[in-house]
Amino acid sequence: MSALSALETPFPTVDLDTVERNIAAMQRYCDAHGLALRAHFKAHKLPEIARMQLAAGAVGVCCQKLGEAEVLVGAGVVTDLLIAYPLIGGRKAARLTELATQGAVAVGADSEAVARELSAALAARGATAGFLVDCDTGFGRTGVQAPEDAVRLAALVTELPGLRFRGLMTHPTPPGGAAWLRAARDLLEARGLAVECVSGGGTPGATRAHESGVLTELRVGNYVFGDRRGIAAGHVHLDDCALRVRTTVVSTPTRSRAIVDAGSKTLAGDGAADGNYGLIVEHPDAVIYELSEEHGHIDVSQCNPPPALGEVVTIVPNHACATVNLHDAVALHRGADDVRFARVAARGAVR
Amino acid sequence: MSALSALETPFPTVDLDTVERNIAAMQRYCDAHGLALRAHFKAHKLPEIARMQLAAGAVGVCCQKLGEAEVLVGAGVVTDLLIAYPLIGGRKAARLTELATQGAVAVGADSEAVARELSAALAARGATAGFLVDCDTGFGRTGVQAPEDAVRLAALVTELPGLRFRGLMTHPTPPGGAAWLRAARDLLEARGLAVECVSGGGTPGATRAHESGVLTELRVGNYVFGDRRGIAAGHVHLDDCALRVRTTVVSTPTRSRAIVDAGSKTLAGDGAADGNYGLIVEHPDAVIYELSEEHGHIDVSQCNPPPALGEVVTIVPNHACATVNLHDAVALHRGADDVRFARVAARGAVR
Repeated sequence: MSALSALETPFPTVDLDTVERNIAAMQRYCDAHGLALRAHFKAHKLPEIARMQLAAGAVGVCCQKLGEAEVLVGAGVVTDLLIAYPLIGGRKAARLTELATQGAVAVGADSEAVARELSAALAARGATAGFLVDCDTGFGRTGVQAPEDAVRLAALVTELPGLRFRGLMTHPTPPGGAAWLRAARDLLEARGLAVECVSGGGTPGATRAHESGVLTELRVGNYVFGDRRGIAAGHVHLDDCALRVRTTVVSTPTRSRAIVDAGSKTLAGDGAADGNYGLIVEHPDAVIYELSEEHGHIDVSQCNPPPALGEVVTIVPNHACATVNLHDAVALHRGADDVRFARVAARGAVR
Repeated sequence: MSALSALETPFPTVDLDTVERNIAAMQRYCDAHGLALRAHFKAHKLPEIARMQLAAGAVGVCCQKLGEAEVLVGAGVVTDLLIAYPLIGGRKAARLTELATQGAVAVGADSEAVARELSAALAARGATAGFLVDCDTGFGRTGVQAPEDAVRLAALVTELPGLRFRGLMTHPTPPGGAAWLRAARDLLEARGLAVECVSGGGTPGATRAHESGVLTELRVGNYVFGDRRGIAAGHVHLDDCALRVRTTVVSTPTRSRAIVDAGSKTLAGDGAADGNYGLIVEHPDAVIYELSEEHGHIDVSQCNPPPALGEVVTIVPNHACATVNLHDAVALHRGADDVRFARVAARGAVR
């Protein structure tokens, strides 16, 4: 019995050889096109993998919440952190300031109120943080709504102590997004405001980022693991899926149904267009058609033979980022016998 | 500023006065109808609340995984634990045996293989666990498929050392389930096998459990918190929703859209038929129409006035059990100023 097969189930495993290959491939793409790669920490929340990404050439790390940045700084990763999220409230401003005294940090935000509050907190301690104007280039989430709004906010930021305007960010980069960003950049430069960075994001479509002609940086995270959604979208191969969940068939009540000990508290409830909650590697014709909290409900009618009671099977989840977030630890491995555990440091309510 | 309003966001809060009221109401229902109440731990994963349920009259606690039972025993709750889940594999059998040496424990399962494996492990250490035959009375998850199958498994269990046949369990109890269970019970009694317990489960429909005429026990958990699904189903009032998530409006990019710092990693991605991911108490006309991992996307077009940038709002999530599971801690409170933190002990990959 290998160390991997001795793991209790359900348990998430991460193949470090595959992770390294994925990191190298995305870095090669960015290098070939003169794009800076910023590693998105939210995808794995493991400082060890962030260090691998930095060693391979990433310019820095992107965080989606302050708690992630605090975990990274606590783990000694203090170089060029971007918190790509609007930080509001006095306590968050104080926490950002604390981080800014320990290393280079920047924020992305879309409002004057956030800029003024952060500026006041940073300036009071003589600290400085970079500032990227968050632009809504079509996704419809956060972000200023027009290039002129981006210029207005950037001009304010250049006047505020404690903040340094660095450029623009968006997520993802939809088809019309490049024109939006070019217009904003040109307006800014016409005003004499230097745009060091135009940052786009998202693993789907990542390898077309160079076509925009305007992005200087790519924020990506999911690519280190890959997942079933990536396979469905055509940009991930099964062999590149580094994150898998080992699970046991705990019940085979009928010929067509099997139940595994991986439900929505193990795989996350992220669905897919085809109604399948995960790819069972050993039984690719199986369909995980429903998740209870601790049960995966599987249609095995197309499997010959079907999974046996007690069999351990391996699931590639639909959404790797959401899956990792559910677990206290993952099993990092190289091959089947070199296995060790890593705490998913930044998960849970890191406040 | 109250202690509650001083909490960082996003953060889940639990109103203990409301929890007590919910516990008392469900206990009154069970007492009135001669049903034993078994508190389902998966809903809250907080030993403190399990103790409140036991003090109010619950006969024991139900767990959905071994790790939950281990946390309870570690916290000193050792009375009458039921692990309502098929435990397969040598390590799980050993862990169950360890629990059985520390307190009264029972399992629910649906296969001869599980019964034999657990029996061997328990008997080898002179330990005993109760055994409930898990019955599929129409839900289509785990469980034996026919009353005759229940009798066959029960008869085997009575022959196996280390196990003591206690009765039947099902989840939930669909309309045809009562007839199924009565048939199984009658067959068992005709064989001379005593059926101490017929256990049904699920908060939706809980207060109709007595109509079955066959259930002796009700396994319920969600009722301590309530949630937006319960409101939609008509069995929960907003005032009874003890679990809420405090979240901040971090962006108001357009008049019709607001973004809060509670996404699928905070609220869980459990949807609802009306496409709304949660009820915003202060703005009941708002619709959380989409969740990114750290963003809640809100349509505020029907709100007059809309939520303001920086405003802290309170969300009743769709699914309380899934929400608690995402957080390392909750803030237990009575009123707005008596606030303390409790670790969600059994969440994450408790193996």
